[in-house]
Amino acid sequence: MDERKVILRELLEQDPADVAEVLSDLSEEQATDLIHRLFLRHAAAEPLGEMEPEDSAELVIRLDRKEASEILSRMDPDDAVDLLFELPEEIQRELLSRLSTRDAEILTDLLAYPPDTAGGLMSPEIVPLSLTMTAQDAINLLRRRVEEAETVYYAYAVDDAGGLLGVLSLRDIALAPPGKGLSDLVVRDAVAVHVEADAEEVARLFDKYDYLALPVVDEANVLLGVITVDDVIDVIRDEATEDIYGLAGVPGEEGVDTTWWASLRMRLPWLYVRLFTALAGAVVVGLFEETIAKVAALAVMMGVIAGQGGSAGMQTVTIITRGMALGEMERRKGWHLLAKESLLGGANGILLGSTVGAITYLWKGEFLLGVAVCLAMWLNLIIAGLAGVAIPLGVQRLGKDPALASGIFLTTVTDVLGFGLLFVIAKLLLPGI
Amino acid sequence: MDERKVILRELLEQDPADVAEVLSDLSEEQATDLIHRLFLRHAAAEPLGEMEPEDSAELVIRLDRKEASEILSRMDPDDAVDLLFELPEEIQRELLSRLSTRDAEILTDLLAYPPDTAGGLMSPEIVPLSLTMTAQDAINLLRRRVEEAETVYYAYAVDDAGGLLGVLSLRDIALAPPGKGLSDLVVRDAVAVHVEADAEEVARLFDKYDYLALPVVDEANVLLGVITVDDVIDVIRDEATEDIYGLAGVPGEEGVDTTWWASLRMRLPWLYVRLFTALAGAVVVGLFEETIAKVAALAVMMGVIAGQGGSAGMQTVTIITRGMALGEMERRKGWHLLAKESLLGGANGILLGSTVGAITYLWKGEFLLGVAVCLAMWLNLIIAGLAGVAIPLGVQRLGKDPALASGIFLTTVTDVLGFGLLFVIAKLLLPGI
Repeated sequence: MDERKVILRELLEQDPADVAEVLSDLSEEQATDLIHRLFLRHAAAEPLGEMEPEDSAELVIRLDRKEASEILSRMDPDDAVDLLFELPEEIQRELLSRLSTRDAEILTDLLAYPPDTAGGLMSPEIVPLSLTMTAQDAINLLRRRVEEAETVYYAYAVDDAGGLLGVLSLRDIALAPPGKGLSDLVVRDAVAVHVEADAEEVARLFDKYDYLALPVVDEANVLLGVITVDDVIDVIRDEATEDIYGLAGVPGEEGVDTTWWASLRMRLPWLYVRLFTALAGAVVVGLFEETIAKVAALAVMMGVIAGQGGSAGMQTVTIITRGMALGEMERRKGWHLLAKESLLGGANGILLGSTVGAITYLWKGEFLLGVAVCLAMWLNLIIAGLAGVAIPLGVQRLGKDPALASGIFLTTVTDVLGFGLLFVIAKLLLPGI
Repeated sequence: MDERKVILRELLEQDPADVAEVLSDLSEEQATDLIHRLFLRHAAAEPLGEMEPEDSAELVIRLDRKEASEILSRMDPDDAVDLLFELPEEIQRELLSRLSTRDAEILTDLLAYPPDTAGGLMSPEIVPLSLTMTAQDAINLLRRRVEEAETVYYAYAVDDAGGLLGVLSLRDIALAPPGKGLSDLVVRDAVAVHVEADAEEVARLFDKYDYLALPVVDEANVLLGVITVDDVIDVIRDEATEDIYGLAGVPGEEGVDTTWWASLRMRLPWLYVRLFTALAGAVVVGLFEETIAKVAALAVMMGVIAGQGGSAGMQTVTIITRGMALGEMERRKGWHLLAKESLLGGANGILLGSTVGAITYLWKGEFLLGVAVCLAMWLNLIIAGLAGVAIPLGVQRLGKDPALASGIFLTTVTDVLGFGLLFVIAKLLLPGI
């Protein structure tokens, strides 16, 4: 038996998630070859479903259309639709046309929901139950249709129009006396999410209530599908990565595997934005060129004052944006936070300012220079606290992502004011400059 | 009926997670009063289990010990032990002494595992099955002992010594013909985690394989407990928050609800660390005071060069540390990333450097000044790329958290070199300074 067959046989015994990892690490040629071999053993659908949809789409594009559509029909519909989303519309249509009418209908319906909504996360594979059934009836029905259901850890009771009546746990059904009616087991006011609800909102519900699955309904309360906790873990991870990247000025979905050229195209525009905001600070410094020529010590300390403002302000921005992401911001009013952060900035500022002021005095022996440095630091940190609250709240109100945009605005404020305050205060306090 | 009774009755109908939110929002007096009222209705344990352990511990400390120990005995052991961890040892011991011997034993065993390990996450409430049972036997046993089990969506088969033999899904058991033997339903090479495994490693397993629960074993493969996916969601959230805070220089577990005084104590030490590293940059600038007095334009541009180095370097640090957190770093070698990031830094640097150099030339009309600015920017961005890879890898090798410490080191490098490079190159290129 040749070596490739041995490897294939070993792969077939692995968890699909492990096979997905192997596929991601291979070159595109090798990966499509391996998919073809897995396909012949009906084993290609699950690993492709476990891959990032962008990556699996690139491989599926390279398969012949017949093979691709058969793999698609074997995938869980929520994974299949994520993959379809990444394909050009032409290929989407061609693949859908090769599916059975029922499969094509299900996927076309799902494609209508944006990926970052409850509809985009849900699986339509549910086995609805009627409340007239007994526990034993339900077990018998689920036993027949187990393959169709995304999760049967929960089952959902619906009325004749498909309206959601309540949730049933398989545990309760299985462990109840067989003759017990489902109407005695159902939890009636079950939490359900609207099909257009935001994915992050769905993630917060799962996080707060520790659900394993949530039913998805439309305006008329008709049951459309189910979202399981494993899909939500991906949302939580991706959301966290987005926030981390936003705060650090990494726009886009970069990772350690991104090529240098793709990285360049993502990072460079942001660095240019950052450059032009930094030049705003430079313009302020440029206004005081003569002052600098007279008292070069100001040039030495100005970076420290601006930098501390940026550091303290980013602490505030970070806590506010993370609070927004975790849904903790409603509880506290913006005014309350403005008061807290300006108080905090004032306290931090006077301590740090005294330290730097004292160092400046010891270095240059000019008391008023030390006072100017201290005052500039104090005022800049109060402003940093205020801006650290106001900027993310304002950016959010404009409907933009507060994590990405806030840092740019904040450092511009703390640079411009850090430099400006020092020079203006020095000119007021020091004689002859 | 007085108003408080109405509120209490309404709360008793809410999900424990909602009651937990109400408790978190009340003052400590009001919250302990409410807990006392919930306790009388046997309804205090679940909401306290849903709260952050630090918060619930503060409330439990205020209850009388008898009430506290009774609440503890009604909590899920994994929640109870998280709460106990936050209490002073004396109170821990007193509360444990009031529990039944069995409950006290379970909690004492769990207290031995650090909270950030598999042992700290697991629940010991499992109903082990023997492979000699039929599906119907298993259902009957689980039906009797359903209250004791943290999750019966999965059940675990063990040998006589308690060694883990395999995993059974309740779905398979419930939907199998009643007479079928468990040995036909068991999945034998089930993934299990070692009791001392790191919580982040456990979270990555859940993320990758989409498990709902994982068994926890010791060295001898004896089944000790089970970790469910809802506990892991908290780990993923907390881990992400920690990374975000670390990169932004927010040490400690701050949130929008933290008091200003607690915030001050957490943030100020970090700002002082940041101040002293900023002073390292200031010392470099101070060495070139005379140069600045002659060419004040250098003072104008130096902040831009140092700032761009910091921004570009933090992009790199962020991608590397996030890659580490998501377990994606093994796939790529450090050398590969050093090559990529220095190439990227060189490309970004020459583009940004030319822009700033040209602006400087247009402003001052001195060609060599523009060249000096361009070269300093170029070199600083190459170094920022190299340092952005080397620093987090080095910090991790030292066993520290790369997210928190890397930013400090990186900005020190880009400040000191950003300033130093500009002055040194200017002195070499420009006549008479």
